[in-house]
Amino acid sequence: MHMEITVLSQAELKQVLELDRVIASVESVYKQKAGGRTAVWPSVEYHFEEEQAVMDIRSGYLAGDKLHGAKMLNNFPLNAQAGLPAFTGMLLIFDSTSGMPLALMDASYITSMRTGAAAALGVRTLARKNSKNLLLVGAGRQAFFMVAATLLAMPQLENVRVHDPLDSANAEKFVSQIERRLKAELNLNLSGKVNFTARNDLQAVLQDSDAVITVTRATSPIIKQEWVQSGTHFSCIGADMLGKEELDPELFRTARAFADDKKQCLAFGEMEIPYKAGIISEQSIQAELGEVLAGTAAGRISEADITIFDATGLALLDLATGKLALDLARRKGLGQKASI
Amino acid sequence: MHMEITVLSQAELKQVLELDRVIASVESVYKQKAGGRTAVWPSVEYHFEEEQAVMDIRSGYLAGDKLHGAKMLNNFPLNAQAGLPAFTGMLLIFDSTSGMPLALMDASYITSMRTGAAAALGVRTLARKNSKNLLLVGAGRQAFFMVAATLLAMPQLENVRVHDPLDSANAEKFVSQIERRLKAELNLNLSGKVNFTARNDLQAVLQDSDAVITVTRATSPIIKQEWVQSGTHFSCIGADMLGKEELDPELFRTARAFADDKKQCLAFGEMEIPYKAGIISEQSIQAELGEVLAGTAAGRISEADITIFDATGLALLDLATGKLALDLARRKGLGQKASI
Repeated sequence: MHMEITVLSQAELKQVLELDRVIASVESVYKQKAGGRTAVWPSVEYHFEEEQAVMDIRSGYLAGDKLHGAKMLNNFPLNAQAGLPAFTGMLLIFDSTSGMPLALMDASYITSMRTGAAAALGVRTLARKNSKNLLLVGAGRQAFFMVAATLLAMPQLENVRVHDPLDSANAEKFVSQIERRLKAELNLNLSGKVNFTARNDLQAVLQDSDAVITVTRATSPIIKQEWVQSGTHFSCIGADMLGKEELDPELFRTARAFADDKKQCLAFGEMEIPYKAGIISEQSIQAELGEVLAGTAAGRISEADITIFDATGLALLDLATGKLALDLARRKGLGQKASI
Repeated sequence: MHMEITVLSQAELKQVLELDRVIASVESVYKQKAGGRTAVWPSVEYHFEEEQAVMDIRSGYLAGDKLHGAKMLNNFPLNAQAGLPAFTGMLLIFDSTSGMPLALMDASYITSMRTGAAAALGVRTLARKNSKNLLLVGAGRQAFFMVAATLLAMPQLENVRVHDPLDSANAEKFVSQIERRLKAELNLNLSGKVNFTARNDLQAVLQDSDAVITVTRATSPIIKQEWVQSGTHFSCIGADMLGKEELDPELFRTARAFADDKKQCLAFGEMEIPYKAGIISEQSIQAELGEVLAGTAAGRISEADITIFDATGLALLDLATGKLALDLARRKGLGQKASI
């Protein structure tokens, strides 16, 4: 019997995926998860010593959408020397009513889009409603998607400050290009509506930051507890593997902490280090974000709360975003069919 | 930058893969493993209750060949009602020098071919050299590949007996078709060289079986200890998931037992039940098959030894077989290119 799979290239994904629909899709997954309609399968991670590279397999099951699948991501930083992308990966999606393969697609762009959406949902759900000032810590490849999604989800934001802990010139460059990139890459026209500035003075800028998104590769805290004002929200994106850490663990003593997936957050997320240090236990986690989105758990309670969203990343988000892309591509007659 | 992946369909795999080359490839992987040049990553397994289906992800790294990747297999037995194959899956292969994706292919045929090769290598390595009589327990989808590979690897075999513990008519049918299928599907002409018979009398046929391949879905022992003659070899293929079991655990008390991967065999292979029952420990395993193939461990020591090869299946075998198929397809101008 003849079977086919649809392959979507990164170029095709860029043509079909719209960030606001990705945000809606990610929100739907978080809610499905809160309703017990998902399974997050154990992640697999491997370090290639000689290549200084990392490989990561995430997989899971969206029972509501009847989809399962896996994402393999490769991070080979030395690739740049050979003119190859450092960050590549593939997402494979199956129909869970039959086990038939549905689609294979570039996982790198999907990951960027859904991670931006996750950060944005953290901010929208857990930052103060009247937030004006967003601080982005990290100005790497993913930062662009964090800014874009958060501005879409939080139109009340007026100022976006960007701090690069490793390279201040990088933050300057990021800020100088952001409006043009938002228009060119995501068709978002924010000209004049938001002020973008690069900031070197992390301690100072934290004084009036309503929401902070951390998206670095740090393995020791960048943000010290004593710098943080009451009421601040943190969406922590960078700490998605063992040993990675962006916040002072002491912050967890008083903050209201939320997980994308409790098990993953304690195992290798921003919560890993405070958990291992005995600062928090599983019971210290207020809820998963999906429970707050679904209305079954409280998020922020007072304007003075410090709230933390630890996003370790779920293949479930990739599956839903990938299926969205597949549906949109079909409507536009895009996608490459291959016999399997 | 433009990147491509090659997709190979099951039809293309059948055109390019030759079983003797697959056997050589699988042997090479076992030896690489014995030399510490491979990594078997944790497997992921999930049961879909409503669909009565199972999903399995195996992944790993062949350092010698600089390949890594993952295989997702789906077993949806109720598919038959809808005219769909019950057993489907995809294999994704990456270049481990760069993390770039190389190929996506049907995993079902690859699995059949490499599993046949594994069983054959077990028999060739651990059965008595003058073995004449092969017994196949199980006459399902995989049995055909077991017979084919074992006859290729052991040309001294004269008799193949087939026993189906669930359905004796199935064994009859299997035997009536085997010569024609070997010729048609694998271009193996054995006409007149080997006697094929269906056997209902399992206890009797065990009396003069030199080598036994078990390839069933059994979850309780089919073969009783008291039925087994000294000198018999068992290649156990069926027990590749938690709870599956084909041999009487008591057999492990005196047999020389070999693993494809010690950790997997104890966790979910034929060794799982005897291990949990305290009949064997990790130290009871003589060696991994690759060590015997590489000459760093002894296999069978005397003609009277009962030897057992527990094959749980390794993604490493799929990677090597898949790469072999990719190379052969390129030479023949086969394979579908897709942009990614």
